[in-house]
Amino acid sequence: MKHLLEVADLGADGIDQVLRLTDSFVEVSGRTIPKVPALRGKTVVSLFYEDSTRTRLSFETAAKRLSADTMSFSVSSSSVSKGEGLRDTVETIDAMGVDAIVVRHKSSGVPWRIASWVRASVVNAGDGWHEHPTQALLDCYTIRSRRGSLDGLRIAIVGDIAHSRVARSDVTAFAALGASVTLVAPPTLLPPSLEGWPVQVCHRLDEVLGGLDVVYLLRLQRERMTEALIPSLREYRTLYGLTAERAGRLRPDALIMHPGPMNRGVEIDAEAAGDARSVITAQVANGVAVRMAVLYLLLGSGADLVAPLPELAAQA
Amino acid sequence: MKHLLEVADLGADGIDQVLRLTDSFVEVSGRTIPKVPALRGKTVVSLFYEDSTRTRLSFETAAKRLSADTMSFSVSSSSVSKGEGLRDTVETIDAMGVDAIVVRHKSSGVPWRIASWVRASVVNAGDGWHEHPTQALLDCYTIRSRRGSLDGLRIAIVGDIAHSRVARSDVTAFAALGASVTLVAPPTLLPPSLEGWPVQVCHRLDEVLGGLDVVYLLRLQRERMTEALIPSLREYRTLYGLTAERAGRLRPDALIMHPGPMNRGVEIDAEAAGDARSVITAQVANGVAVRMAVLYLLLGSGADLVAPLPELAAQA
Amino acid sequence: MKHLLEVADLGADGIDQVLRLTDSFVEVSGRTIPKVPALRGKTVVSLFYEDSTRTRLSFETAAKRLSADTMSFSVSSSSVSKGEGLRDTVETIDAMGVDAIVVRHKSSGVPWRIASWVRASVVNAGDGWHEHPTQALLDCYTIRSRRGSLDGLRIAIVGDIAHSRVARSDVTAFAALGASVTLVAPPTLLPPSLEGWPVQVCHRLDEVLGGLDVVYLLRLQRERMTEALIPSLREYRTLYGLTAERAGRLRPDALIMHPGPMNRGVEIDAEAAGDARSVITAQVANGVAVRMAVLYLLLGSGADLVAPLPELAAQA
Repeated sequence: MKHLLEVADLGADGIDQVLRLTDSFVEVSGRTIPKVPALRGKTVVSLFYEDSTRTRLSFETAAKRLSADTMSFSVSSSSVSKGEGLRDTVETIDAMGVDAIVVRHKSSGVPWRIASWVRASVVNAGDGWHEHPTQALLDCYTIRSRRGSLDGLRIAIVGDIAHSRVARSDVTAFAALGASVTLVAPPTLLPPSLEGWPVQVCHRLDEVLGGLDVVYLLRLQRERMTEALIPSLREYRTLYGLTAERAGRLRPDALIMHPGPMNRGVEIDAEAAGDARSVITAQVANGVAVRMAVLYLLLGSGADLVAPLPELAAQA
Repeated sequence: MKHLLEVADLGADGIDQVLRLTDSFVEVSGRTIPKVPALRGKTVVSLFYEDSTRTRLSFETAAKRLSADTMSFSVSSSSVSKGEGLRDTVETIDAMGVDAIVVRHKSSGVPWRIASWVRASVVNAGDGWHEHPTQALLDCYTIRSRRGSLDGLRIAIVGDIAHSRVARSDVTAFAALGASVTLVAPPTLLPPSLEGWPVQVCHRLDEVLGGLDVVYLLRLQRERMTEALIPSLREYRTLYGLTAERAGRLRPDALIMHPGPMNRGVEIDAEAAGDARSVITAQVANGVAVRMAVLYLLLGSGADLVAPLPELAAQA
Repeated sequence: MKHLLEVADLGADGIDQVLRLTDSFVEVSGRTIPKVPALRGKTVVSLFYEDSTRTRLSFETAAKRLSADTMSFSVSSSSVSKGEGLRDTVETIDAMGVDAIVVRHKSSGVPWRIASWVRASVVNAGDGWHEHPTQALLDCYTIRSRRGSLDGLRIAIVGDIAHSRVARSDVTAFAALGASVTLVAPPTLLPPSLEGWPVQVCHRLDEVLGGLDVVYLLRLQRERMTEALIPSLREYRTLYGLTAERAGRLRPDALIMHPGPMNRGVEIDAEAAGDARSVITAQVANGVAVRMAVLYLLLGSGADLVAPLPELAAQA
């Protein structure tokens, strides 16, 4: 595998390979020195054209735990102010001999264009409303680590599907692993067409709530209100929010998930986020190990997967 | 010790322990390869909600000399623009498995709230007008390295006490080590109440100048003038500035200190900053070693304190 | 050599030494693990007062491949907003014990002032319209690697000479190595005086094009049009742009060069940039190796130039 651009690059077998590799890196992450030499000498560049805390830091942490060098390039401190085009920027970074470019961009498809220009491996860390494949992988890993398998699970993805790259990647991944996915949203927050999506659709959360294995809340961008896609935040919460009351109606073994950052009191109440069935913090923790697995698959030599740092072994 | 939030966390014994440990790291910093493996595999994140050159770089240098991995997160390149709350940001960073969070924030008390939310160690790198404990530690170290001890020394802290976290932390630390501290400022730049502060107060620098062992000038924020707390920068300098003339009246063994960045020609003249008795540059240099000591105390295993890098030892 | 401030610091012998050293680092850059321990424990700080993608990342990549620690300080996230002066910033960074400061600043001469204040080595990464010595070195390396030597080559530098630090550094370096340099520009884009410059001047590209060994296009800042230094971008392209048609009239062994970022369709057409004789991508790649050579010359101990990482050798 050269690039990770979308979940469909992997298929069920590829997802399974990443998730098994992730088990090894979860083990590494629990060590006193949570670091392996697997990618020593490799360089991973973050190229973020959109703000991000969690995704950029998660990839950087993953790269450092693999002993890769990291550099980051964000739009505000760049030649972009000189009018340098995307292609020139990317080709310049590539010509310096970097090994992977982790890219986030507000326009769908940009990672594919970049992949066509460079020798380095490209990882899509979110492109517009389109795809965010490592989010889907960490979501699958999180569910699998709690429930053993996704096969046959009933998963609802709730909220602003239309503008969500998380939803698109998750639907593909969850369905590939055998889950039954229901999208729950008002018509204004659904894509114009769902042809070809392996999903059911439902406009009322309460209709499906009691039977779910996983309820996955999406972040609601507040500007959807000014765009008149929802009448008010209060009404949205009333119909689609995971309130404490609704959490009480979930099955005892259901999982509560959210990609973060959360709007507490809108799509999810603080009580629901802190519920014992919430795996939202586990999602973040697993994100580092999943990204270690992805970087290792793209850049690793296949050998020294989880060996400790040799200089410390020598010391012992 | 789990966190370093304020000087009072340490007490006189704790301060003494940090200063003795700092001696070791000053020795390391003087080596050809000023680096030890003590924190290899640990991750230190800088979380700065206020601009800073010296403090952020000083902590990062300290962490790198201990072989820790570093990451930095500043407010401008963050999800804060998406409205992510402080708590979500911090819990996300913590969930990634980082070992220490070095935080600066414009609001007093924020580091305590963060410490209550996370598993990682928290270091307060400045919260509002409240505390800046590593500054106090480096100030103590600098004085002690020149004068052997702070016990019985007469120290004046001059300037905008009211808005200064440096002053608050320094007063606690200097007094704990036995110094006699005088605050020198106009009433408008003193806190409304000094009850419980172990200090004398004086409104005229010239009254105490000749008897001082240490004169510590605080930075004057120029906005204090627009707030009508001082009549003019010129008048402030006339009454409270360490002019070349006043430096001439200091004892031969007095120390001139400033936390930086300086307003030359306001609280301190260029001649006084460059005087042979000025230890302002030493404060910066000692800051790195003090922060190595603090990070080592919080994160170190207690073993390989100042061993050289094992891979280089193996090479020799 | 303590600092690299301008090409004249090196002279022909010094340039030759850097280029021979660069050969070694090009070899290193081609390895599976393109990293040597030569500068382990050294710290290189980028201090950029102007935006830059390629130069900052190139220096950081170079430093990391030498196992140095890197830190970066850019104007937007700095105490500059507190009014901290250049000198205070630089002296603070220096006092932390860093080994090299790589500086870019919009004012000519700033790197010399910095060099006079600090113990660290200073590398000029571009000062105003004045000098950009590592660009000249990578340009020389690129030409020499294709043509064996610069001696006797006919090189035209085309475009906005007046405002170009690249042109000034290149002229000095190319002439020192024996090339014959012609500046091609309208009078409005030439410096007021060329006294002492070892160059010919020509106002029409077509006059010299067919005889050139190297055509070096400079970036045209679009604001030159609003300043009325050129009548229009279209007219500039007609007279000075390397169009596809003009590229067709170059010798078969001529080299097409550009320091980037390019304005495709203004000073160079996309076809010319992608021509088989274009070495623009090679310039970027060689930039990393040249900067490794420069940092090694300034900071290296002279010993372990291209040895592999010892911990990996121990592992083998």
